[in-house]
Amino acid sequence: MNNASENSEKTATTALVERLAKAGRIAQRKLARMSDAEKTLALQGAADELRTAKDEILAANALDIEAAHKAGLSGAMVDRLTLDDARINALASAVDQVAALPDLVGQRIDRVQRPNGLILDRVRVPIGLLGIIYESRPNVTADAAALCVRAGNAVLLRGGSDAINSNRAIHAAMVRGMATAGVPQDAVQLMPTQDRAAVGAMLAAAGYIDMIVPRGGKSLVARVQADARVPVLAHLDGICHTYIHHAADPQMARAIAVNAKMRRTGICGAMETLLIDAAFPGSHELLGDLLDAGCEVRGDARAQAIDRRVVAASAHDWDTEYLDTVVSVAVVDGLEAATAHIAAHGSHHTDAIVTADDAVAEEFLAEVDSAIVMVNASSQFADGGEFGLGAEIGIATGRLHARGPVALEGLTTYKWLVRGNGQVRP
Amino acid sequence: MNNASENSEKTATTALVERLAKAGRIAQRKLARMSDAEKTLALQGAADELRTAKDEILAANALDIEAAHKAGLSGAMVDRLTLDDARINALASAVDQVAALPDLVGQRIDRVQRPNGLILDRVRVPIGLLGIIYESRPNVTADAAALCVRAGNAVLLRGGSDAINSNRAIHAAMVRGMATAGVPQDAVQLMPTQDRAAVGAMLAAAGYIDMIVPRGGKSLVARVQADARVPVLAHLDGICHTYIHHAADPQMARAIAVNAKMRRTGICGAMETLLIDAAFPGSHELLGDLLDAGCEVRGDARAQAIDRRVVAASAHDWDTEYLDTVVSVAVVDGLEAATAHIAAHGSHHTDAIVTADDAVAEEFLAEVDSAIVMVNASSQFADGGEFGLGAEIGIATGRLHARGPVALEGLTTYKWLVRGNGQVRP
Repeated sequence: MNNASENSEKTATTALVERLAKAGRIAQRKLARMSDAEKTLALQGAADELRTAKDEILAANALDIEAAHKAGLSGAMVDRLTLDDARINALASAVDQVAALPDLVGQRIDRVQRPNGLILDRVRVPIGLLGIIYESRPNVTADAAALCVRAGNAVLLRGGSDAINSNRAIHAAMVRGMATAGVPQDAVQLMPTQDRAAVGAMLAAAGYIDMIVPRGGKSLVARVQADARVPVLAHLDGICHTYIHHAADPQMARAIAVNAKMRRTGICGAMETLLIDAAFPGSHELLGDLLDAGCEVRGDARAQAIDRRVVAASAHDWDTEYLDTVVSVAVVDGLEAATAHIAAHGSHHTDAIVTADDAVAEEFLAEVDSAIVMVNASSQFADGGEFGLGAEIGIATGRLHARGPVALEGLTTYKWLVRGNGQVRP
Repeated sequence: MNNASENSEKTATTALVERLAKAGRIAQRKLARMSDAEKTLALQGAADELRTAKDEILAANALDIEAAHKAGLSGAMVDRLTLDDARINALASAVDQVAALPDLVGQRIDRVQRPNGLILDRVRVPIGLLGIIYESRPNVTADAAALCVRAGNAVLLRGGSDAINSNRAIHAAMVRGMATAGVPQDAVQLMPTQDRAAVGAMLAAAGYIDMIVPRGGKSLVARVQADARVPVLAHLDGICHTYIHHAADPQMARAIAVNAKMRRTGICGAMETLLIDAAFPGSHELLGDLLDAGCEVRGDARAQAIDRRVVAASAHDWDTEYLDTVVSVAVVDGLEAATAHIAAHGSHHTDAIVTADDAVAEEFLAEVDSAIVMVNASSQFADGGEFGLGAEIGIATGRLHARGPVALEGLTTYKWLVRGNGQVRP
């Protein structure tokens, strides 16, 4: 493709995104004023319609699966794509659960009365129009749309091309279900083109889209973070550490280490690096548990000395998110060495200490500069549902707006309401 | 300059910014752990040293003023630059006032105990390293540095070249004053070069600088917003509206309109557009007050019919922030027309209604999508000090992180502290 045609294509895609965004923003102004009860009804309607449209969604999904087989996608990829009766029921139930979440829009954050009589309230309002960019799991279409609407936001969804037919069917069902409760059709829009330039146009749409949330693998998140002119809520890596302090209860340390690594290795809160205090007495049993559970352990020289099954870690290992049955292990001399290792190699996601010494625990909590810092718990708890936030849109490791699990609160902003009785400024 | 030398210059400037940022981030880790009392002492030390170094600062300022005269700067520009005994005292007092502000770092936002016994706290922590880019007022050097340090942040300051000698003297005094209380020197850094590429390098320093705050005129803010890869907290325009509802108390309406426009025309909270309800009975007196106060009134046809001194507004006027003794006036038919005008032409900064009808007031508060929405008060109150927040770093009209006047809270983020007693995730 030459530059001229590429530019004209970019322009058309940019125009499309701007047109969709404008329509979404108009719809959002109506959605922002809908009551808690109206939004609840709308989301319940969406869940019902997902169940009603089950055959339609399954037929659409069959097209995607057929295309995936033809394209030679891996079994794991096809499994991610695949919907069945149970999965559609689960998807609808998830929407029902979001419907039941408390409405934060209009909630007062704080109130101050000034000496001159002015009363200042900060109240939560929706952010506006969000862009969700995701990959092959069609359930994101329903999950993300429901969360956005619950917080009064419009959303522009851009799913993976593998799931395009499934996404269209799910999107259509949700829009139908919400329309009966008065949600404007343009409040939830699915990008009508699979043109890859559309993602670039969304990322560039500052002033049209208020925030982008990427949902998917590292290459998607990296691309979004690198190219976006719109604020992005995301995390790139989850290089989570667990530090076993010398005063850790050995049984607790073993249980937490195995759970943090092995419960589910593919989630961002999974432990990737284990730091063992040189003075911890139970290190042999601890590494034995991990090795016996089928985990590959890559260690420094001192970790290798603990169990001969520990293989040598390379410098690269300390900065690697395995998302697999692999862990890197370093033996460290005390709290300061542990926090220095985390500062040098961590990704500011979730880091944990196991210790029976409260003073050491508090020092770790204060010193470690991550979105989530834990004491005596498995890092696998790093999850909006486990935090009691209901569904999460993602986990953010940036430092502005929202940090850690981002749920409804992170999908709102606030405005100041100032009530006076004629005050003028001296 | 050819491309090759421009690129190599960019590279050197980028390397400089990265080196300063790394040093700042190391200093910030220490600053983040300093106690309330230590930071208070440090800022009091900075204020004292500003007073002690008065002669040195005045001598440096004299160099800037001499250069400004040689460069033919306007009287207003020279006045902005000029320091004297009283202005240095005021500057030091402002730092003392910031020293006295409550420390938010470590403050608990909320706490939840989960059914599994995990205790989750969100506590405020500093953001990290901030970049402040400003123009010719040397007081920003002291104000911004003090606010950043109060919230535990390191800061990289980039002032205007007009004030370079003054800024260096103020910066040196503050660093000396804070060092006695243990604040690392690199916690507050002043960009050592006046090379314009340094601003570009700061704006591009994602991952090094956590947030940029521009302080200055519209062209500076526009450039920062257009080019930054680092999150920016700012507002570009303050096109503030006051809507006089038909049920407004006429005396109150007159007092608020004149104050909102004329008290200080150059601040971002000054009214730029007056919307008068067609059914408001006091419009003749209202416009008369503004005209008599020396304000140029540019109106639509119906506003021109109210007073023959009203000149015709052009389409451009409705989107103009005058920052001067000029106001645009439209006569509107009711609340909906008023809010539609604000939605079409506002800048989401501050918009106000004057009305004695509470239901109408509440409807206006809910419908207008601005950072600050006021009832029966002058928009000139849009100010962190007037909001009781202490000093402000600026007013933000973006939708993420902080909105409206941004003071200490907006200079913090939070982290999640999770305390368990051995919980593993099922």
